[in-house]
Amino acid sequence: MLQDVFLVGIGASPGIAIGSAYVVDRRRMSAVERTLEPHELEEEVRLFHAALQHSREQLEDVKKRVADPHIAEHLHIIDTHLLILKDPMLVDETVATIRREKINAEGALMRTLKGFRAVFDVIDDEYLRERRSDVDSVGDRILRNLVGVSQQSLADIERKSVVVAHDLSPADTMQMDKSRIIGFITDLGGRTSHTTILARSLGIPAVVGLESVTSQIRERMPVIIDGCTGTVVLNPSPDTFREYLDKKQFYEYQAEELTYFRGLDAVTLDGHNIILRSNIEIAEEVPIALREGAQGVGLFRTEFLYMKRKCVPSEDEQVEAYREIIESMAPHPVTIRTLDVGGDKLVSDIDLSDEANPAMGLRAIRFSLKEKILFKVQLRAILRASAHGKARILFPMITGVAEIKSCKNLLNEVKRELAEEGHAFDADIEIGIMIETPAAALVTELLAREVDFLSVGTNDLIQYCLAVDRGNEHVAYLYEPLHPAVLRALRMICRAAQQAGVMVGICGEMAADPLYTLVLLGLGFDEWSMNAPFISQVKRIIRQVYRPEAEQLVAELFELGSAPEAARRLAGEMNRRFPSLFGKPIGGPVE
Amino acid sequence: MLQDVFLVGIGASPGIAIGSAYVVDRRRMSAVERTLEPHELEEEVRLFHAALQHSREQLEDVKKRVADPHIAEHLHIIDTHLLILKDPMLVDETVATIRREKINAEGALMRTLKGFRAVFDVIDDEYLRERRSDVDSVGDRILRNLVGVSQQSLADIERKSVVVAHDLSPADTMQMDKSRIIGFITDLGGRTSHTTILARSLGIPAVVGLESVTSQIRERMPVIIDGCTGTVVLNPSPDTFREYLDKKQFYEYQAEELTYFRGLDAVTLDGHNIILRSNIEIAEEVPIALREGAQGVGLFRTEFLYMKRKCVPSEDEQVEAYREIIESMAPHPVTIRTLDVGGDKLVSDIDLSDEANPAMGLRAIRFSLKEKILFKVQLRAILRASAHGKARILFPMITGVAEIKSCKNLLNEVKRELAEEGHAFDADIEIGIMIETPAAALVTELLAREVDFLSVGTNDLIQYCLAVDRGNEHVAYLYEPLHPAVLRALRMICRAAQQAGVMVGICGEMAADPLYTLVLLGLGFDEWSMNAPFISQVKRIIRQVYRPEAEQLVAELFELGSAPEAARRLAGEMNRRFPSLFGKPIGGPVE
Repeated sequence: MLQDVFLVGIGASPGIAIGSAYVVDRRRMSAVERTLEPHELEEEVRLFHAALQHSREQLEDVKKRVADPHIAEHLHIIDTHLLILKDPMLVDETVATIRREKINAEGALMRTLKGFRAVFDVIDDEYLRERRSDVDSVGDRILRNLVGVSQQSLADIERKSVVVAHDLSPADTMQMDKSRIIGFITDLGGRTSHTTILARSLGIPAVVGLESVTSQIRERMPVIIDGCTGTVVLNPSPDTFREYLDKKQFYEYQAEELTYFRGLDAVTLDGHNIILRSNIEIAEEVPIALREGAQGVGLFRTEFLYMKRKCVPSEDEQVEAYREIIESMAPHPVTIRTLDVGGDKLVSDIDLSDEANPAMGLRAIRFSLKEKILFKVQLRAILRASAHGKARILFPMITGVAEIKSCKNLLNEVKRELAEEGHAFDADIEIGIMIETPAAALVTELLAREVDFLSVGTNDLIQYCLAVDRGNEHVAYLYEPLHPAVLRALRMICRAAQQAGVMVGICGEMAADPLYTLVLLGLGFDEWSMNAPFISQVKRIIRQVYRPEAEQLVAELFELGSAPEAARRLAGEMNRRFPSLFGKPIGGPVE
Repeated sequence: MLQDVFLVGIGASPGIAIGSAYVVDRRRMSAVERTLEPHELEEEVRLFHAALQHSREQLEDVKKRVADPHIAEHLHIIDTHLLILKDPMLVDETVATIRREKINAEGALMRTLKGFRAVFDVIDDEYLRERRSDVDSVGDRILRNLVGVSQQSLADIERKSVVVAHDLSPADTMQMDKSRIIGFITDLGGRTSHTTILARSLGIPAVVGLESVTSQIRERMPVIIDGCTGTVVLNPSPDTFREYLDKKQFYEYQAEELTYFRGLDAVTLDGHNIILRSNIEIAEEVPIALREGAQGVGLFRTEFLYMKRKCVPSEDEQVEAYREIIESMAPHPVTIRTLDVGGDKLVSDIDLSDEANPAMGLRAIRFSLKEKILFKVQLRAILRASAHGKARILFPMITGVAEIKSCKNLLNEVKRELAEEGHAFDADIEIGIMIETPAAALVTELLAREVDFLSVGTNDLIQYCLAVDRGNEHVAYLYEPLHPAVLRALRMICRAAQQAGVMVGICGEMAADPLYTLVLLGLGFDEWSMNAPFISQVKRIIRQVYRPEAEQLVAELFELGSAPEAARRLAGEMNRRFPSLFGKPIGGPVE
């Protein structure tokens, strides 16, 4: 039997698990469409309703059985699934199809689901693709109940196992007992799926998006999961086994140690304070941010509010969504970024023809300034929510002063309206802009005069600087955070912000990667925002250095002419200073 | 009747014409597909061959009748059409379809043409779309001969007219008698179509790409064409008529005056010399470049060699194509830019899956460095052609030193091979890079150490800096050459080049626009390359100023915080200094 089969997927929940595989059948159900006689149709409709009822009972049962308090917080996911079970689009459409097309319930349901999927499939956005899986998960459950194929419950697993599945639903994950299920790996899934977030809440290591692991693994095969790097090893050799056993001990020691930093400030040895905040995409992430000691939210992406639905969200709905997070985070601020997608991403009545290069098209602030009615609703909602704590507004994809002025004019208009209507709001709400286009980096000092704070989106900034779409596998190798041009752009931004006396933050992925912590400290970023689980590690590094050392390191990197040279120099320095940080020495160019 | 109906299309050939419309029917022929009896099929094949023969005779007749020496140079276009008439893809496929599908020749031909069009339609490239029109034009001619609908010959037009057509073939244009046809306007067409280039050679004003002018105009309707701006006025009012009469006189006076500059150097009043070169896309443009006194070719785009065909061009073919232009331009250099498209643009065996953002994808040097065999063939061809005059190599879309080093390694490898094979070539051939990504602008001094010259592609540089796809109508308004970020990027590039002691050129559209002449002079560009017809106008401005004045103007523009302010300031200055340059004062934001 082949040893040491290494697979790489998406590290969904950190930690290392070593155990044997328990393969569960979670392939999507498929059924056959059959034509029925007219007299059979009403019985078929009745069977469909019975399957819906059965599905409802199963989900209610999952809710009842959840004991873990970390999971109880997430029970609303099950409520979402219960709502989908009642969705008229799903129910009425299927019933109508049974009657109109004279086919069986399975066939009619599959047609309905296909329609749903078609809507989601055209959308090139991770978050929204994940939401599609909610519908899939519910659809699959109904289908199984219709066909009479029951699903193994993960609550029934008796031996200590690594669960292996094509996909897992949130209901599956909720039933996991940490004392027996030590980790899971799936073919499907992404970073922001409910299942992934649940795994992080439970602290179960997980790797998802492995594409075909279910076809490569067999029951009880030994398997290692590294949820930090997204690595999975099937049938490890003794050497690999020992290596990961070391890693597991190191990780668990470190994870334990890091909890110590949760309540501390991110302050350098010479007393320079850095503010560490959390990036948030959905409300489920708030408890994790609070647990990790985030000093507020540095980036609340509002796209999901617009994207999980067929029409744009009402002002009241948005007020509620913002208020909930603002209240949980008080007294720390919540930085709400206005809509940052193109019209093509919205499942809405706003229709845009295909853009040849959507990344350079009508998106983010450009879209909002074009769809002013939509934009004003969002500004009104943020302002109204600002009465309940501390909110800040962040405008994405700014390239020039004119755009900021248009945003401020609209904001003032909205403030006047709200005041007239008697709504409470924070009249002095801080406004900031994303620096994520090369143009904004080049003219930061002109933009800084217009706002209260700046936030550098390194992901997009790097992409535009290098003219590289990181999502394009053919050119992803050119995406280099340590490219001399990127370092220069970041230095230009920080210097201009300092001269203007405006706070400059960073909310791209660089902020969360401990490899770059000294670089960002040396460049002079004041506020860092990242996914909450990374806060403690970054904080630990900050607390172990003097700021001038970091500045010296940055000066040295600027002497180097290429990204690989800078990466080698940085890795050497980080290994020397923090020998225990990365588990084992890091070397060579770093992605 | 409605007066002053203004339409805007593409200014295809400069100049102003005022006259009455002569509408010719050049709509694409359409015919009905019919099923035939088996015994009718061979007669149908015979009819098809007869129509091919008839088409051949017509085209030969056009060739015979061409008298104008400017046009005689372009007769090879007709030869291309004659070749298409013999193309086995066209002929054999149609004959096979008649026999296999048992349909009439018209139907079979339309199916063949549809197949051809489908290949072209997926291609988002102006040049290649234009080449499709050659096939359309020939297909249409055969179809008319099959159906027996004759086409009016433009040679038969007797009164002085502005020709109005849905589309015009090169054969149509060749038959135009300048003493009677004073201009033409069409629904279809683009800047690089044969028809457009012929119009420029003939000096007939033309506006193309008007989309629906044929449905808005009537026979003998008065019409004004402004081929400089792409404006067309139907049924002008007396005031508009007088305005354009003035413009026409001014244009003709100026055009006459500009011929004076053709033989002169582009030297400022204080003796600073600028080198003005021509951008060239196809060999037909060489005579125009020579006539306009271009000091060589600053940008020879090689894409057309790859794109007008089903397989990549052989080394020998490329040598011939480059040699022809190098010899015509000697002793001036010809700067050959290596392939600057993505794999998706190539009608070739290289297949790339769809890219979400092709502008930030696998194109230009990235594509060449991936497809090294293809790239080496081009480098071999350029080197072999370099034995026949002065060639330079220009690498597009560079972002870092590593790419230049890879290119130089390959070039050295190719030189060794050629030397071993006994081929002659210029061993010291100069190499340069395009500065067209923000990254390249930010690290110009690192890149400059590696090459002999730099060439700034302002079109792409502006697009990436501002994260704006200019081809996207929703955001084109954000494309601003005078954006403070763009001016800063250009200044950074020029300063770094000067410090490195490397020549810095510009080959984007800014170089050709007289509005920007002082700005580019003040920034310090050494070599400017543009479409040849603009050379004299730019040269005239350069010869009328002292360089420090231009530097002073640039310093003033840097004080301004936005593109509209800079545009107003610049327009004011240009109007004051060159009151006669733009015909009438320019004002407001300039595109």
